[in-house]
Amino acid sequence: MNLKDKPPMNKKVIFKTFLPAVLLLLFTACSSSPSHTDEDKNNALQVIMNRKSVRDYQSRPVKETEIQTLLKAGMAAPSGRDIRPWEFVVVTDKKILEGMAGELPTARMLAKAPAAIIVCGDSIQSFYWYLDCAAATQNILLAAEALGLGGVWTASYPYEDRMTIVSKYIGLPEHILPLAVIPIGYPTGKQTPKDKFNEQKIHYNTW
Amino acid sequence: MNLKDKPPMNKKVIFKTFLPAVLLLLFTACSSSPSHTDEDKNNALQVIMNRKSVRDYQSRPVKETEIQTLLKAGMAAPSGRDIRPWEFVVVTDKKILEGMAGELPTARMLAKAPAAIIVCGDSIQSFYWYLDCAAATQNILLAAEALGLGGVWTASYPYEDRMTIVSKYIGLPEHILPLAVIPIGYPTGKQTPKDKFNEQKIHYNTW
Repeated sequence: MNLKDKPPMNKKVIFKTFLPAVLLLLFTACSSSPSHTDEDKNNALQVIMNRKSVRDYQSRPVKETEIQTLLKAGMAAPSGRDIRPWEFVVVTDKKILEGMAGELPTARMLAKAPAAIIVCGDSIQSFYWYLDCAAATQNILLAAEALGLGGVWTASYPYEDRMTIVSKYIGLPEHILPLAVIPIGYPTGKQTPKDKFNEQKIHYNTW
Repeated sequence: MNLKDKPPMNKKVIFKTFLPAVLLLLFTACSSSPSHTDEDKNNALQVIMNRKSVRDYQSRPVKETEIQTLLKAGMAAPSGRDIRPWEFVVVTDKKILEGMAGELPTARMLAKAPAAIIVCGDSIQSFYWYLDCAAATQNILLAAEALGLGGVWTASYPYEDRMTIVSKYIGLPEHILPLAVIPIGYPTGKQTPKDKFNEQKIHYNTW
């Protein structure tokens, strides 16, 4: 080897050692960061698929800002003729939570929940308030999943007895009816999502 | 400059020109990819907030894989006692779409839509099938937004006349009832999301 050979050798060494490492780094960085559109797609769809009915909660209170986000999500739902007949009662009072837990047959977990959102509808404003409120309830459940919170749709409507119990605890006017009581809290991790896809439920053009 | 100076010069030149460019590229790649948790939160919540009723569509057909994703999202909804009383009819037949568009008072846009998903429920399996199907419908609308598609909830249930029209076009058995006809297509961009947040809809602990 003479001095004349050295420069090209150095260049080669640098490219041979440095370039593959850099390319590997770039590839790793880029492959974990798909285009904005793909991220949007995947994360929203993941939240939809990962939502599960969470019935066990940590005892720590839910952040007020997160409750606000859940309510915003609820109000972002569509409603027939854009009437928005929904009303939301946020319950953090332990007495009310435990009282309802003791009386509602499918909402025992309210006793352990730091909060609940009761989705109600104005039955005068809309005769199908319960459909708009169902969309709002689903939005809240998905937003909870997105925030690392958990909730579960415990039905009040269409059960007359449960509606009477809920109305009594939160003092609803006669025309405001409760659709669902959603206990909210940080999950303990006991519940996991189910794969409920069933091809037999799909029909093309006609039944 | 003599031959002896050349090798270190070459190294410097390479590092000075190549390294900054590589670092810039790496920085750009990494800064557009925040932590997984933050992305999850933001994108799912953005999709919930950005969902709008899309009534104008491009004429190009909806990808079959995207229709499948919408159906998977629909079936990921919660349902009372996990009965999953939903059924989905995917309509791409122009005759059926245009026929329904001509008869359904709030679904004229079906004539321009490349596809529709009709969310139906089994009224024997569940007496509140329409609530489970409402959650499934909302999941489909959100998944459409996530995929860059658009749709709108046009109500069949609880309107007897509309349910009869839909059932006739897609040949539903008597106990399978249509909740909503959702036209689906790539938006033209005419519709934008509304800010529907209203603090007066929020109550704390009691009404």
